[in-house]
Amino acid sequence: MKHYLGIDLGGTDIKVGVIDEQRTIVCKHSVPTRTGRPAGEIIADMAAAGRHALNTAGLGEADIGYVGLSVPSSINHNNNRLIFAPNLKWKDFDFIPYFKKEWDVPLYMANDADSAALGESMAGAARGYDNAVMLTLGTGIGGGLIMNKRVYVGGDGYGSEPGHIVIAMGGEKCGCGAYGCFEAYGSVTALIRDTIRAIEEYPDTVMRDICGGDISRVDGRTPFKAASLGDPAGMKVVNNYIGYLAAGIATLIILLRPQVVILGGGVCNAGDPLFVPLRESVADRVRITGDVGIPPILKAELGNDAGIIGAALLGAAGDTK
Amino acid sequence: MKHYLGIDLGGTDIKVGVIDEQRTIVCKHSVPTRTGRPAGEIIADMAAAGRHALNTAGLGEADIGYVGLSVPSSINHNNNRLIFAPNLKWKDFDFIPYFKKEWDVPLYMANDADSAALGESMAGAARGYDNAVMLTLGTGIGGGLIMNKRVYVGGDGYGSEPGHIVIAMGGEKCGCGAYGCFEAYGSVTALIRDTIRAIEEYPDTVMRDICGGDISRVDGRTPFKAASLGDPAGMKVVNNYIGYLAAGIATLIILLRPQVVILGGGVCNAGDPLFVPLRESVADRVRITGDVGIPPILKAELGNDAGIIGAALLGAAGDTK
Repeated sequence: MKHYLGIDLGGTDIKVGVIDEQRTIVCKHSVPTRTGRPAGEIIADMAAAGRHALNTAGLGEADIGYVGLSVPSSINHNNNRLIFAPNLKWKDFDFIPYFKKEWDVPLYMANDADSAALGESMAGAARGYDNAVMLTLGTGIGGGLIMNKRVYVGGDGYGSEPGHIVIAMGGEKCGCGAYGCFEAYGSVTALIRDTIRAIEEYPDTVMRDICGGDISRVDGRTPFKAASLGDPAGMKVVNNYIGYLAAGIATLIILLRPQVVILGGGVCNAGDPLFVPLRESVADRVRITGDVGIPPILKAELGNDAGIIGAALLGAAGDTK
Repeated sequence: MKHYLGIDLGGTDIKVGVIDEQRTIVCKHSVPTRTGRPAGEIIADMAAAGRHALNTAGLGEADIGYVGLSVPSSINHNNNRLIFAPNLKWKDFDFIPYFKKEWDVPLYMANDADSAALGESMAGAARGYDNAVMLTLGTGIGGGLIMNKRVYVGGDGYGSEPGHIVIAMGGEKCGCGAYGCFEAYGSVTALIRDTIRAIEEYPDTVMRDICGGDISRVDGRTPFKAASLGDPAGMKVVNNYIGYLAAGIATLIILLRPQVVILGGGVCNAGDPLFVPLRESVADRVRITGDVGIPPILKAELGNDAGIIGAALLGAAGDTK
């Protein structure tokens, strides 16, 4: 029976998983990343963790065809160099030779958001769909496009970045330096910013009580909780946020017509109060294709395992149905 | 020597061309569409015009592998039905069986904007690039994506519509019924609207003289001509227009990373005063990939022949280098 090994390098942990043909994790292992130390040490730990997981699963190199790597960095897929990994402070970094020195196996590599998108589309919420868009709503908006079961890396090889499409020309400044990016409106960071602004603007909002009068305690749940209590300011923040998500998702649908859109990140735990109006708002914005409707917009299922599973399956498009 | 036949159905004319292996038109023919008459008559004329061009070129069916059709309609590529052809007033129309009744040959079919994009990418401005985005700036914004030398029809088969991505949430109303679409800012229709608004706002603008005091004579050249004369209102209209184009093009680059972007339509004849600041503005908005830069943004070369050539080459991805 064939197995797959995925190594997910994050800012906090190096997570490793062995996946079987049913695309289920059979063995998982994790070690701290400890950023700040030399890249070679981190990469040596990645390889060691991968070998350890494989051994623990009672498997050897012969049982896997390749190792899949998920990295928190934009990637130049023409030369496999990491363009920029903000959490690791790596820039234009030639990662692969370092890894090969530690473990000389065939490798596939993808951005973390792309790996998560592949995981969800091959083993999670979008299982059974060959073409998917996944967005992870967090500090920023991570995004991945899956086309024909493969990560879309862009026609020029520099990788797709759905969080940075322009939805509001001249609008909020984004962390990337440009203005009006999707991420500057649809990330949880943006939601918290808008919640704090609403608390400042509406002195009577229940959101002030929810955060105990301390705006540093505002999180992505605050406005949803207030909205569920009928608080006008909370409802306004939530409605605006859903409108922002709808604008970005509509653009992705209009341009790519994926078979499914998957949303991940803690804010999705808001459930129906988020997803029901969001689907309506997206459908209202996608007019040009008339009555054909919009693809399903679903909640991610794999949580933190999406990256491991996606990394493990990076080279699997050919072997799977 | 192999040949290709393309039939481009437009609102005014049915244009037909025979293309050789060098992707050059060797024979061209055109008949009026005469919209308003029964679809079957129009389609019979398309087939007759195609056969006529083939005969005129001294060729027969054995010299072509298929006939390529360009139609002014969104297409459901799952069942090949035309979703909506506004100029012809066809809706959910099963076009192919009508054509096959007239001429039973293997067929390829694409939207007119997609055909033009394929033509430019295989025989025009983007020749030599496998991945391209083309936008035609006209009454609306027609757009096509070429991926690996093929028209991208969308993961769910409903076709990509780059003119209707959202660049300004809650902004100008678009002809499609939604608000803030790229087309509502970047089309020539939008440019004329903004020029007229500027003439109304700035009584002293030279644009008033350029159109002879008659705003119904404003066209896409009016603000460019005024800007070249140093007219502040004209410069403002042009700068804003370039900013709108940059927002839409930046989104397409960030998401798709094409190897080249091609712009068509009469407004592109403005040349450097359009393209030079446009490239700067797009580069300024594409920050997330750091120093890798943006793909070339080029002017289309084939003019009205792009659709015929693209249609003719719809099935050629496999046979060409």
